[in-house]
Amino acid sequence: MAATYEQMWKDLGLDLASHDALLQVLGKGYQDIFLSQTDRPQGMDYFNFVMSEVHGLRVKELVDGKKEGHKVIGSFCVFVPEEIIRAADATLVGLCTGADFATEEVEKLLPRNTCSLIKSAFGFKLGKVCPYIESSDMIVGENTCDGKKKSYEVLDALVPNLYVMDLPQTKSNEGRSVLRAEYDKFKKTVEELTGVTIDADRLKKGIEIVNNKRKAVHRLSQLRKADPLPISGLDALLINQVFFYDDPIRFTDSVNKLCDELEGRIREGKGLDKKGAPRILLSGCPMAVPNWKLPWVIESSGAVIVGEESCVGERGTRNQTDASGSTVDELMESIVDRYFKVDCAIFTPNSDRLNHVKQMFNDYKADGVIHYGLQFCQPYQIESLPVEKALEEAGIPTLRIDTDYSMEDVEQIKTRVEAFSERIKMAGCSTCRCS
Amino acid sequence: MAATYEQMWKDLGLDLASHDALLQVLGKGYQDIFLSQTDRPQGMDYFNFVMSEVHGLRVKELVDGKKEGHKVIGSFCVFVPEEIIRAADATLVGLCTGADFATEEVEKLLPRNTCSLIKSAFGFKLGKVCPYIESSDMIVGENTCDGKKKSYEVLDALVPNLYVMDLPQTKSNEGRSVLRAEYDKFKKTVEELTGVTIDADRLKKGIEIVNNKRKAVHRLSQLRKADPLPISGLDALLINQVFFYDDPIRFTDSVNKLCDELEGRIREGKGLDKKGAPRILLSGCPMAVPNWKLPWVIESSGAVIVGEESCVGERGTRNQTDASGSTVDELMESIVDRYFKVDCAIFTPNSDRLNHVKQMFNDYKADGVIHYGLQFCQPYQIESLPVEKALEEAGIPTLRIDTDYSMEDVEQIKTRVEAFSERIKMAGCSTCRCS
Repeated sequence: MAATYEQMWKDLGLDLASHDALLQVLGKGYQDIFLSQTDRPQGMDYFNFVMSEVHGLRVKELVDGKKEGHKVIGSFCVFVPEEIIRAADATLVGLCTGADFATEEVEKLLPRNTCSLIKSAFGFKLGKVCPYIESSDMIVGENTCDGKKKSYEVLDALVPNLYVMDLPQTKSNEGRSVLRAEYDKFKKTVEELTGVTIDADRLKKGIEIVNNKRKAVHRLSQLRKADPLPISGLDALLINQVFFYDDPIRFTDSVNKLCDELEGRIREGKGLDKKGAPRILLSGCPMAVPNWKLPWVIESSGAVIVGEESCVGERGTRNQTDASGSTVDELMESIVDRYFKVDCAIFTPNSDRLNHVKQMFNDYKADGVIHYGLQFCQPYQIESLPVEKALEEAGIPTLRIDTDYSMEDVEQIKTRVEAFSERIKMAGCSTCRCS
Repeated sequence: MAATYEQMWKDLGLDLASHDALLQVLGKGYQDIFLSQTDRPQGMDYFNFVMSEVHGLRVKELVDGKKEGHKVIGSFCVFVPEEIIRAADATLVGLCTGADFATEEVEKLLPRNTCSLIKSAFGFKLGKVCPYIESSDMIVGENTCDGKKKSYEVLDALVPNLYVMDLPQTKSNEGRSVLRAEYDKFKKTVEELTGVTIDADRLKKGIEIVNNKRKAVHRLSQLRKADPLPISGLDALLINQVFFYDDPIRFTDSVNKLCDELEGRIREGKGLDKKGAPRILLSGCPMAVPNWKLPWVIESSGAVIVGEESCVGERGTRNQTDASGSTVDELMESIVDRYFKVDCAIFTPNSDRLNHVKQMFNDYKADGVIHYGLQFCQPYQIESLPVEKALEEAGIPTLRIDTDYSMEDVEQIKTRVEAFSERIKMAGCSTCRCS
C-alpha cells in the first residue's frame, strides 16, 4: 500500500515512518485475529479488502471527493447526525482511535486518568498517523462525557476547525430542546461549510441512505440469533466498525450481500464449528478499530459473541429515522426523535439501556453478558454495577471487565472469561439435570 | 459531646460506635491542624465551638426545627439555590464528605476510580455516621460531573427522598432555559415538601439572607489582601466550609464580627508571623470538612494561603443575587442569572474561570497558584492542564497537585510544595537583583 499512497499521505501531513509502523502492526493484528479464523463467510472478503485499504483507497476516495467539492466531516460519536451531512453531499467519517499512540505526548495535554479512547484520539493526531483527521474539513466534538467535553477544549488548539455540539443529560422536554437547537445549528454550519442548502428532498435522501445502512446492519444482527452462528462476533464487530468510515451505499450493499450468504448458511444449518460454546452478549463501551482485544480473548477462549450492546453495535444502529415528513422542520423533528432515543450512559436515568440489554440477551439467545468498561469511562463504569446487579437478579450471568487498550492484562482477562464460560456451562448442566 | 446527643444520634439511625470513632479522629485532626496554630484571631473561637459541636448542637437545632415544621434539605453542590430553600423557611445543609469511610462497602456500589468526594459521601451514608443526611427530608443531587450524575442513580436506592436537578453544560440560551426550568421545578418541589407557597416577599427575604452570608465571606476574603495576613488560609477555609451547614444568620454575624477584629489587626499591622512566606492561591476542586490535607501541608511548609478559587471558596460565594425584582418571576430570573455565572469546570468552554484565577492572583497579591485536583475528577483535572499552561505563560508560577483523601502521599506533596515555594522565592530574589 505504501508506494501507491505515499505522496497522498505526505500531502496530508502524516509522519510517514510512524504511519508505516502503525500499518504494519495493524496488518499483523488483522492477520492474527481475523484472517486466522476458520469458517468465515465469503462476504467477509470485501471487509478484508476494506481493512487492507483502510488508510489507502478509502482515504484516496475522500481526497478525490474533496477535489470535487465534497467536504469531509470527522467525528467521534454516534450523536453526530449523518443524515444532515449526507444531505449536503458531504461524508461523515469516524476518526482514528482504538490503539495507544504517542502516549507520552498525549499525557502532556491530558491527565493520565483519561480513558484510552480519548487519549488514543489525541495520540493519532499528535503522532500524525490518522489520514481521516487530516482529511477532515471539520471535526465535530460533542458534550457527551466529561472526558470528551473537556478534552475538546484542548483538542481545539490542535486542529483547524473543531465544532462542538452540546448534548442534553436528561430526556426531558428541555433536554429535547437542547438537542433540536443543536441539530438546527449543526445543519446551518454544514450548509455554510458545504455551500449546499439542505431542503426537504435532500434531507429525505440523507435519511434514506443512513436508514438503509442501519437496516443492513440490523439485518446482520438478526441472523446472529441462529445456532450455529453464521458469523463470528469478531467479524460482526468489524462490520460495525467499518460502518463508521466506508462509503455508506457501497457498505450497505456489501452487508446485504453478506446477509444473503449468511441466510443460505442458516438454511443449510451451517456456521461456526463451535457447538456448545457459550453465547456471549457484549455490552458497554464502544470498540473502535483496532480495539479487538476483548472480543478476541472471548472468541479465542471457546465462547462466541452474539451481539454488541454498544455505540459500535446496536445502541448506535437499532433506531431508524422516520422519513415520512415532507418539510425540513418535520424531518429535523424525526432526526431529533431518532437520536433522542439513543440510550447512552451519559443520560440519567438511563433505564432504557438495561431493557435493551435484556431484550438482546433474549433475542440473540445469549447465555451470559460481558460488560466492557473502558477504564476511566465514568458513565459506563458507574452504570455497569447496577446493570450487573439487575441482570444477575434476572438470572442472567454477567461479568464486568474494565480494561484499556494495553495488552498487559490479556492473560488476566482470559482467565476471568474462561471462568465465566465455565460458570455458564455449569449452570447449563444443572438446568439439564433438572429437566 | 457523646452523652448529651447519644439518644438523638440513635434516633437518627447512626452507628454509634463508628460515629464515636469518627468524632474522635475529627477532634484530634482539628486539634492538630487548627488549634495548634499561633496568632489566631479571637473570632475563631466561634468556629472552634461550631466544629466541636459539628455533629451535636447544630444537628439538634435541625432536629428541633423539624419538630416545628422546618424541613431540612441536604445537598452536595453550590448549584442548589439556597435562596429558594430559605424562602420556604427550610434549611439547606451540605452533606458529609471529605474523609474516606466504609470504602470497602462503597466499592461494591461504585467503581474504585470514582473521586474521593463521591465515594466519601457514599461511605458516610453506608457507614451510618452522617447526622446531616439522616436528618434530611430531601436530598438534592445535581447533574454536574459524570461521577455525581451517575452515582445519584445508585444513591437513589440508599436514601428515601432523592431529588435530582438537571444542569446545563454550556452557557447558551438553551442552557439557561434548562437551568430556569429546573429551578422552577425545584421551587415547586420545595413548596410541596414544606407546604409553604413561595411568594415574592419570601423569595426576597431568602435572597437577602443568602446574599448577606456571601457578603460576609466576601468581606473576609478582601481582608486577605493584607500583608501580613490577618488570618491563616486554614482558618479562612474552615469558615468557607462552615458556610455550608451553620445557621446562615448566626454565621453571617460571626463572620462579620471576625472581620471587625481582622480590620483592627490590619490597622495595627498585626497578623501571622510569617514574613516573607510565599503567598499561595489555591484553585480547583472543593474541600469539604475534614479534607484539610493540602492546605495543612502548604501552611505547615512555611507558605500561606491567600484565597480559594473553589466551590468551597470564591467560586461558590463571589456572585450576589439581585434582589431588586418585585415579582416571583423577576426574582427567579435573578437567581438563575446568579447561578449561571458560576464558573464550574462542568461548563464548556469555561474561560471565565481562568480570568477569575488571574484576578484573584492579582487581588490577593499571590506569588503562585497551587491547583488542587481531586483524583478522578475529570472536569477539573482536564481543565487544570490548560489552566496551568495559561498561568505559566502569564508569568504566574503554578503547581498542579492531584490527590485523594488518603494520607499516603503527604510527604510527597510536602516535598513538591516546598520545591514550589523555593522556586517562588528564587524568582523573587532574581527580581530583586534585577531592580
